[in-house]
Amino acid sequence: MKILVDANVPASDICFSPLGEVHRMPGREIDAQVLADIDALVIRSITRLDAAVIDQAKGLGSPLSFVGTCTIGTDHVDQSALKAHGVGFSSAPGCNAEAVVDYVLAALGLAMERSGEALADQCIGIVGVGNVGGRLAGRLAAMGIAHRLCDPPRAAVEAAGEFMSLERVIEECNVLCLHTPLVREGEHATHHLLNAQRIAALRPGTVLLNAGRGDCVDGDALKQRLQQQGDITALLDVWEGEPAIDVQLERRVDLATPHIAGHSLDGKLRGTHQIYQALSRHLGLPARISFGDLTPEPPLSRLELGAGLSPDEALRLCMRAVYDPRRDHDRLDRALDGDRSGKAFDACRANYPLRREFATLEVGLKGSAVELAPWLSGAGFRVCPPV
Amino acid sequence: MKILVDANVPASDICFSPLGEVHRMPGREIDAQVLADIDALVIRSITRLDAAVIDQAKGLGSPLSFVGTCTIGTDHVDQSALKAHGVGFSSAPGCNAEAVVDYVLAALGLAMERSGEALADQCIGIVGVGNVGGRLAGRLAAMGIAHRLCDPPRAAVEAAGEFMSLERVIEECNVLCLHTPLVREGEHATHHLLNAQRIAALRPGTVLLNAGRGDCVDGDALKQRLQQQGDITALLDVWEGEPAIDVQLERRVDLATPHIAGHSLDGKLRGTHQIYQALSRHLGLPARISFGDLTPEPPLSRLELGAGLSPDEALRLCMRAVYDPRRDHDRLDRALDGDRSGKAFDACRANYPLRREFATLEVGLKGSAVELAPWLSGAGFRVCPPV
Ligand SMILES: NC(=O)c1ccc[n+]([C@@H]2O[C@H](COP(=O)([O-])OP(=O)(O)OC[C@H]3O[C@@H](n4cnc5c(N)ncnc54)[C@H](O)[C@@H]3O)[C@@H](O)[C@H]2O)c1
Ligand SMILES: NC(=O)c1ccc[n+]([C@@H]2O[C@H](COP(=O)([O-])OP(=O)(O)OC[C@H]3O[C@@H](n4cnc5c(N)ncnc54)[C@H](O)[C@@H]3O)[C@@H](O)[C@H]2O)c1
Repeated sequence: MKILVDANVPASDICFSPLGEVHRMPGREIDAQVLADIDALVIRSITRLDAAVIDQAKGLGSPLSFVGTCTIGTDHVDQSALKAHGVGFSSAPGCNAEAVVDYVLAALGLAMERSGEALADQCIGIVGVGNVGGRLAGRLAAMGIAHRLCDPPRAAVEAAGEFMSLERVIEECNVLCLHTPLVREGEHATHHLLNAQRIAALRPGTVLLNAGRGDCVDGDALKQRLQQQGDITALLDVWEGEPAIDVQLERRVDLATPHIAGHSLDGKLRGTHQIYQALSRHLGLPARISFGDLTPEPPLSRLELGAGLSPDEALRLCMRAVYDPRRDHDRLDRALDGDRSGKAFDACRANYPLRREFATLEVGLKGSAVELAPWLSGAGFRVCPPV
Repeated sequence: MKILVDANVPASDICFSPLGEVHRMPGREIDAQVLADIDALVIRSITRLDAAVIDQAKGLGSPLSFVGTCTIGTDHVDQSALKAHGVGFSSAPGCNAEAVVDYVLAALGLAMERSGEALADQCIGIVGVGNVGGRLAGRLAAMGIAHRLCDPPRAAVEAAGEFMSLERVIEECNVLCLHTPLVREGEHATHHLLNAQRIAALRPGTVLLNAGRGDCVDGDALKQRLQQQGDITALLDVWEGEPAIDVQLERRVDLATPHIAGHSLDGKLRGTHQIYQALSRHLGLPARISFGDLTPEPPLSRLELGAGLSPDEALRLCMRAVYDPRRDHDRLDRALDGDRSGKAFDACRANYPLRREFATLEVGLKGSAVELAPWLSGAGFRVCPPV
């Protein structure tokens, strides 16, 4: 059993050596020739597996029976070609969803600090309630923060009562979080889901966060509202025209980051682990390695809080100690100063500094700070008694 | 023994009740009438004790024999009038110097993060090497960071070899920290110490920090350099014309804070404690209460670091967990949006959120992170083994 793994997939050794003979190479060098004697392939989005490559590999007699991509996206793989050759396929949906939710809470914490409001007083609209949006809703519920859900495709097949129209969410919420994929056509198309008209309908003071796909928001209309009224706050991780983004828009955005909301080490390792589980299933073997076996000790393992902080202050302290998105804003801002061609944007993503998830931090609570336990554990931290 | 204490002096009960009968009132209500039967007076800068008040109180037969101000400034007290009546006097020099040094390191940490440089690679010029500048030099020395000292008044009476001219410091350093008082006249006048010519001489890339007095820097010349060249970074806590500051300049400053560098709770308590010690000495009594008796548990008491962070990352993490000056920048920025009259600036100072000093944080170091011990303890944290 020969398993070929993209050399940039972390923890591939610990996961895949128990299942076969592991080979590694740079993802962009993987071609039909290379696949000729490979049984299972584990890739990232850099490897394009189109029908031609798959057909050619199979024509060369490749025993390939499984392809796994450690990513949530699957655009780089022609799944029907794999199916035609009877090759199993798996991706890693939701592997970085927790990281995106960390980003959302951190970004909203910043916006609230700047506006002087309390996070607990907000009504947060979640548009797109899938892996990311669903987990965000879960954390907000655990924290006791009001939220509204908008997901017409889900509403169409599930108990619709839980969901609202986008118009109503815009009306009822002062924070709007977009977590929709890009759907170009059909009833539930998301291209410019937030079009000029809906952007005009946002109440003054609204915080608009987009961590779904850049094309879901009409960037020109948003820029105009920010430039002309300047009465809403935008927090953008994804952009129209990435990587060559609109620098005029970027300068007006309170928190501007280069599509890195999901870039945690834990998310990458979760991607590996999900493919490890899928391959184990494919081979009919038990998956003995747990996710916890893959994650190294975090650089910051614990902090201890006592009395004296408001819930928002305590939350911000914990969040920023683990991840402060202003770091990524500053990096992008600086990079765009020199180069607006899109290379700067891509470079910020490629050289992304190590980031861990909230769940890696143990928070000890002393004295009256124990009252913060539901709030902080709801936000994703591991709340423990003081040592 | 009747001791009258400004009601806003913290920890006055624990300090002064062992020495006499403590009375409290708002500082601005203290007048000659009130002082008629007071033996010792403890004030802040809000109480103006000019010759008229002192003479009048003494004319009313006041037994006043000691005045202490829990502040580093003494402009609000006519010391010669006190002396004429044989009244002892004490102030609290340096009580908030540690807080200012915390601010300086936090501000420089931010500037370095934004420029992508390492703090350890900088050469830091300290202009004004008194209570604040001297402590800053001490921390930099403990951290192994190159620094240069400029203090002509000290150079004139001490071993001059340690000190340099301002011109040479500007030439040799890429970071310039001003900690001079405002001296209007004489050989060592500091009004516009950084005048247009010296501002023009700053090397591109220089970081200029002023936490001394606003008038030591020519604000118009600085604004011009920032507007026209934009090739230096300014971090300003003090401003010409405070509280009605130049908002155009403020908008160009990377970190703009409302004269709060020294505003820690610990600094205020140290001020009380210094006056307690002085009054005890004045009364010939032992000072049994230690500074540690006054300081409450900090909201964040401990954090634990393991391997994986660069020295700068570890330092920034610890600093920001205790104090992040961007909070104060954002507060000022927001306040100035509504009101540029100076009221906004004053309000930011008056409603200053609780802040603790770096020394209140215990940092546990695990694994290879123990190598960071000298760096982090040099910066002012209490480095302890992991529990
Ligand atoms: N910024 C980042 O770093 C980052 C990280 C992870 C995911 N993402 C992006 O976030 C998006 C969501 O990711 P996910 O993993 O949650 O995907 P998902 O497929 O699990 O969920 C998407 C949800 O959006 C809903 N949806 C579709 N059309 C909609 C419409 N018109 N209005 C409202 N809802 C609609 C779907 O029904 C689904 O529930 C994706 O586009 C993904 O690429 C970004
Ligand atoms: N931003 C804040 O919140 C804050 C807090 C504390 C102090 N301060 C200010 O910082 C300044 C320094 O405070 P400190 O407690 O260290 O005072 P200090 O009196 O202890 O020290 C001042 C030093 O400046 C030196 N000096 C005087 N003229 C000089 C010149 N022309 N060039 C170089 N050095 C010169 C003096 O010799 C002295 O060593 C004061 O103006 C104080 O008001 C500001």
